[in-house]
Amino acid sequence: MKIRYGMIGGGEGSFIGAVHRKAAALDSRFELVCGAFSSNAEKAKRSGAALGLDPARCYGSFAEMMTAEQKLPENERMQAVSIVTPNHVHFAPAMMALEHGYHVIIDKPIAFSLDEAEALHAKVQETGLVLALTHTYTGYPMVKEARHRIAQGDLGRIRKIFVEYPQGWLSTFLEADGNKQADWRTDPSKSGAGGATGDIGTHAANLAEYVSGLEITKICADINIVVEGRKLDDDAAALLKFSNGASGCLIATQVAAGEENNLKLRIYGEKGGCEWTHTDPNTLLWKPLDAPVQVLRAGTGYLCDAAQKGLRLPAGHPEGYLEAFANIYVNFADAVHDHMQGRYTSEADYDFPGTADGVRGMRFVERMVASGKSNDKWTDFS
Amino acid sequence: MKIRYGMIGGGEGSFIGAVHRKAAALDSRFELVCGAFSSNAEKAKRSGAALGLDPARCYGSFAEMMTAEQKLPENERMQAVSIVTPNHVHFAPAMMALEHGYHVIIDKPIAFSLDEAEALHAKVQETGLVLALTHTYTGYPMVKEARHRIAQGDLGRIRKIFVEYPQGWLSTFLEADGNKQADWRTDPSKSGAGGATGDIGTHAANLAEYVSGLEITKICADINIVVEGRKLDDDAAALLKFSNGASGCLIATQVAAGEENNLKLRIYGEKGGCEWTHTDPNTLLWKPLDAPVQVLRAGTGYLCDAAQKGLRLPAGHPEGYLEAFANIYVNFADAVHDHMQGRYTSEADYDFPGTADGVRGMRFVERMVASGKSNDKWTDFS
Amino acid sequence: MKIRYGMIGGGEGSFIGAVHRKAAALDSRFELVCGAFSSNAEKAKRSGAALGLDPARCYGSFAEMMTAEQKLPENERMQAVSIVTPNHVHFAPAMMALEHGYHVIIDKPIAFSLDEAEALHAKVQETGLVLALTHTYTGYPMVKEARHRIAQGDLGRIRKIFVEYPQGWLSTFLEADGNKQADWRTDPSKSGAGGATGDIGTHAANLAEYVSGLEITKICADINIVVEGRKLDDDAAALLKFSNGASGCLIATQVAAGEENNLKLRIYGEKGGCEWTHTDPNTLLWKPLDAPVQVLRAGTGYLCDAAQKGLRLPAGHPEGYLEAFANIYVNFADAVHDHMQGRYTSEADYDFPGTADGVRGMRFVERMVASGKSNDKWTDFS
Amino acid sequence: MKIRYGMIGGGEGSFIGAVHRKAAALDSRFELVCGAFSSNAEKAKRSGAALGLDPARCYGSFAEMMTAEQKLPENERMQAVSIVTPNHVHFAPAMMALEHGYHVIIDKPIAFSLDEAEALHAKVQETGLVLALTHTYTGYPMVKEARHRIAQGDLGRIRKIFVEYPQGWLSTFLEADGNKQADWRTDPSKSGAGGATGDIGTHAANLAEYVSGLEITKICADINIVVEGRKLDDDAAALLKFSNGASGCLIATQVAAGEENNLKLRIYGEKGGCEWTHTDPNTLLWKPLDAPVQVLRAGTGYLCDAAQKGLRLPAGHPEGYLEAFANIYVNFADAVHDHMQGRYTSEADYDFPGTADGVRGMRFVERMVASGKSNDKWTDFS
Repeated sequence: MKIRYGMIGGGEGSFIGAVHRKAAALDSRFELVCGAFSSNAEKAKRSGAALGLDPARCYGSFAEMMTAEQKLPENERMQAVSIVTPNHVHFAPAMMALEHGYHVIIDKPIAFSLDEAEALHAKVQETGLVLALTHTYTGYPMVKEARHRIAQGDLGRIRKIFVEYPQGWLSTFLEADGNKQADWRTDPSKSGAGGATGDIGTHAANLAEYVSGLEITKICADINIVVEGRKLDDDAAALLKFSNGASGCLIATQVAAGEENNLKLRIYGEKGGCEWTHTDPNTLLWKPLDAPVQVLRAGTGYLCDAAQKGLRLPAGHPEGYLEAFANIYVNFADAVHDHMQGRYTSEADYDFPGTADGVRGMRFVERMVASGKSNDKWTDFS
Repeated sequence: MKIRYGMIGGGEGSFIGAVHRKAAALDSRFELVCGAFSSNAEKAKRSGAALGLDPARCYGSFAEMMTAEQKLPENERMQAVSIVTPNHVHFAPAMMALEHGYHVIIDKPIAFSLDEAEALHAKVQETGLVLALTHTYTGYPMVKEARHRIAQGDLGRIRKIFVEYPQGWLSTFLEADGNKQADWRTDPSKSGAGGATGDIGTHAANLAEYVSGLEITKICADINIVVEGRKLDDDAAALLKFSNGASGCLIATQVAAGEENNLKLRIYGEKGGCEWTHTDPNTLLWKPLDAPVQVLRAGTGYLCDAAQKGLRLPAGHPEGYLEAFANIYVNFADAVHDHMQGRYTSEADYDFPGTADGVRGMRFVERMVASGKSNDKWTDFS
Repeated sequence: MKIRYGMIGGGEGSFIGAVHRKAAALDSRFELVCGAFSSNAEKAKRSGAALGLDPARCYGSFAEMMTAEQKLPENERMQAVSIVTPNHVHFAPAMMALEHGYHVIIDKPIAFSLDEAEALHAKVQETGLVLALTHTYTGYPMVKEARHRIAQGDLGRIRKIFVEYPQGWLSTFLEADGNKQADWRTDPSKSGAGGATGDIGTHAANLAEYVSGLEITKICADINIVVEGRKLDDDAAALLKFSNGASGCLIATQVAAGEENNLKLRIYGEKGGCEWTHTDPNTLLWKPLDAPVQVLRAGTGYLCDAAQKGLRLPAGHPEGYLEAFANIYVNFADAVHDHMQGRYTSEADYDFPGTADGVRGMRFVERMVASGKSNDKWTDFS
Repeated sequence: MKIRYGMIGGGEGSFIGAVHRKAAALDSRFELVCGAFSSNAEKAKRSGAALGLDPARCYGSFAEMMTAEQKLPENERMQAVSIVTPNHVHFAPAMMALEHGYHVIIDKPIAFSLDEAEALHAKVQETGLVLALTHTYTGYPMVKEARHRIAQGDLGRIRKIFVEYPQGWLSTFLEADGNKQADWRTDPSKSGAGGATGDIGTHAANLAEYVSGLEITKICADINIVVEGRKLDDDAAALLKFSNGASGCLIATQVAAGEENNLKLRIYGEKGGCEWTHTDPNTLLWKPLDAPVQVLRAGTGYLCDAAQKGLRLPAGHPEGYLEAFANIYVNFADAVHDHMQGRYTSEADYDFPGTADGVRGMRFVERMVASGKSNDKWTDFS
């Protein structure tokens, strides 16, 4: 049985809304049944029509959608919502959804502020509902393979973690030209306390922690607004300390002109290292100490269960960003189904980013911003 | 409006059936409404149930499906069929579908023999229906970009075409172990006259012709059964001549132990060359004579319309095999919609592989096999 | 003690003369003591002066050099000659050197024709002197590693060999513009029967045979003059059969516009494959069947003795073309020193290309040209 | 005329001594005429004999060499010294050489401490002699191309500089096993105040400044001893500020298990970025904003003069570490020849690392160590 879901945001001209819909559609685990695609009622209807939805279920607001759907027969009404609005419109619909008994999947970051994130975390614990956060990169199978191998000790004690996320698309004052993506992302009233820090720095930090199994404990950040006139940071770098004593570096910049979206993670331990790059996501370079580098590949038989589960094709058939995104939807679907059958426990038992990651992400932004302003070398992350 | 389709083949344990379903689902242009998933009635039902289909529309045979669906109300019954059976069961359902007025999308090769391919080609012309063939690789946006640039003369007159498709998965006598994929592909009664020649050689030839805009006119083939006991060729190579006088090489082998699925195309003309590799499908290397190589990338603004149409994400967000596959489904959907509105002309006006490609593919297999047996250097391809 | 050598050819404006001198100098095993750098006496003197040579030992002809040097005291006179003239001036100085008791190192191909090559082979056997041929690519350590592993059976029985050497520098009618390199290479009276076939095809064939340990037994060649007005082939491709029944392809083209000098070798056996590319010569990709690809690297401890001997630096310090070239000079020096001490046996016992390779190279050119003209598919190579 | 030089250090078992000799030999600009290869007289003689030197000129100490050589006829005696001893034995022979009128080329770092470096800098200015420092990586032609393009403004104002030098060879407590290279490099009494900081961090900093044309003005360093028992840092990272306001990161670690010697530099400006990696030193990735990445290659015609001067081969013929090293020797030779002809001005007018770089390198070590111990975020570099 497909899970019936409604979408909040993601109307005409939205980029991330289409991504969520394709990710949800790919494995036929979800059916889009309704939406509040825009706060503009006419645009909301038009967006729904373009998607072939029943006009009666194209709502003018998320609040209307939540109450109207509850009046539909149980076997018709939506069971989950997908929230794809800008950051400042994450909290209200998510909270309302949880209060109305809907499961939630939400684009990252989870909210606008740390307080909001903590409130959502508490509400999920209170309601026992499922809330997933689309930190896409942890959905890649070879990322899961790295996590698995490190967890079972194949690299020994971890010593160094380098994670970087260089982009170049904000190298010019794009927001002045009315670019929709740049506009809200560089506006503190919509994006939150961090610019690059929140938009991509959170991905980098989340990836480093997910794969290493360690937590960042201290940061020393250099945060900059590089492009004149911009209102939020477009560039950040930090020295890091991790819970086991390992150290590392994090780079998150949107002014690396000429770069696309080159998230890269390298982790080194006593027995070797590994390297994963978003440009070639189906490969994990495995670097044993004093032995040849191995090129681990998606679709092969030697991968761990979590990686295998996230793969649809044999080796040599590239899978990409939408498939990684879909893996979060699939694992969210598994949790929702378990919930329906009374078997759901808590997000900690599932392989998808949840409210704990959401809280950590918001705290990361807050701590980075604090460190950026501080003259002390180290700022605690806790 | 989604196109309602039924699937023939693709039941439990099928690889390519799932690929077709995901490709059809990705962009929400199709809805799977029925299926004849297996000649085993019980398995057919079970497969349909797993996909959430109405049990009444899980048929025991494609013949039953074709007639039963026609009795349903027009706004419910299937409008197209997707044929994902082994090669020897392509022709009968395709022909029957055309005779019953259904559009057809079919896994390559189009049929078991050249005669069958020509009959389907004629039937499509007779009925005016749409038939698409999933030569996946031509669905990649950067392949379309290469075709576009060559068509507008950016490389000058084409001189050399190198295409290769090395795989290693048939390096051992896998069919002896009951491997389902290996089993029918190496069985002449199911696969047809060619093994590697048909399975992957046709992809290579199709890609070379699609991108260059040229036709192969002569071949000189060396065809081998490398693994002892095998009944069909697992290795082929050929020297090629093209319609404009250019020459080239084609490699299609399944015994390149250690290789995955490394289709690669290189084309050189008077003014430069280009290179596309399936391992990194979002990149097209562009090599102007006497100037630096350019790394053309998916998701950028400088690509041609056909490439842009096949992309869902901005630069740096990898798209893969399923997306390329889905691009054929999308272009097929456009054609079917045009047909519904009386605007469809012929496959020649659309960017998807059709019956003409199907005929060419089957002729390629026949000519390769003939050349492989001949002591003459050159065998005409026509 | 350094070996004293004289150079024949390689005066002002020569490319390959400087390469030989640097290769000889790198490891301090040779000292350039004299030269016949040009048939133009003034230019010969000037070239020698620029190299800091004694003007008395800058000769106007190789014949003069051979006799004049013999009159010098034994501990001063040259002991070997390095021949770096165009192909048609290889035989005469090499034969004269051997007749005068000098060891010879000679740029490839060994001579202008097969007859000349055979005569040199016979003369070397008669005199017992050392003659080395600079088939540079076999001097790369990772090429030696591949050869070693294949020889000890790590890939099992070899099945497929793909070797390609695409260049683009002759994409235009360069010889019309007085380009010195293009001029003699495209002139049948200076280059011999083959253009691309001789210039780079011989390198490709030599590399394939050196690494695989197999001999080419049959060829089926397509040979073309692509650029209008050219007098010798600038493009060749061939299907190959090897002595153990393996098959393969060889590409040697100089009209692959946009390519530099991309020699690549791939060999596949029952147990896996390997790949070496000149663009990244310090890496050997090792591809075991059903296990991750390994990235074998120069400078590491796990390489064979022949590879280790050819390396001067630890891992991560790239060595290149001159070092590979120098490895032939070093192994030649070892042989010459052994000869001086009465320990030299024959070229077959040393790791440098010699007259047997030279004969095989010239036969390759002759057989390729014959096959290119033949309507029969296969031409014997023997 | 070759420059006659003597070597200090570099006897049996030395790695870097052989590197210097090969680099000096490659282009035939130098002749090794004498040496003080070891403080062990017997070993010094043996080392010299192995190199074919006159036993009378194999000295037991550098002091002896300096005075003895001065007694030789002017046209025989050495003109320059090459110092390849461990760091703590750089200053004394360099200072003595300058006092005796010899030109000096010296392995980096220039000295053991900042004081020593400054004294050498002053002595060079006083004597007007030539002193070159082998910061090898600035000798690579594609590094020079990057510097040239940035200097002429092709990237606009520089904003971000990322430089990293990950090695893995000190991942274990190698010095406990008597590894000669590890032994002195991890010993504060021989290496100086910095371990990884001095050994490779100085290379990274020098490369970043050389290419960008900017100076580091502030650092914030995290410096670690990762391997238990080690006496000097084996791991360092720093946030950087540059003289034009740009910011950046520097990584220098020797415990990145599985890494070889992967120095990488990325610089981003308003108009684009560039990337150079030691693993592929003949390539410079050029990344214009909003246009395809260009793959700039060694040996091509479009490179700047400084790059062209450092190249010996056409495109597609890889040059490596020894060639980059040799480029420093060549430019040193040019300076020495100019000096002999009274035309030498100062190191600032030549393209080789000199005493100013040496002072900067030692200050870098001192400032990094100071920052590593400080709780303040930023430490001035000046």
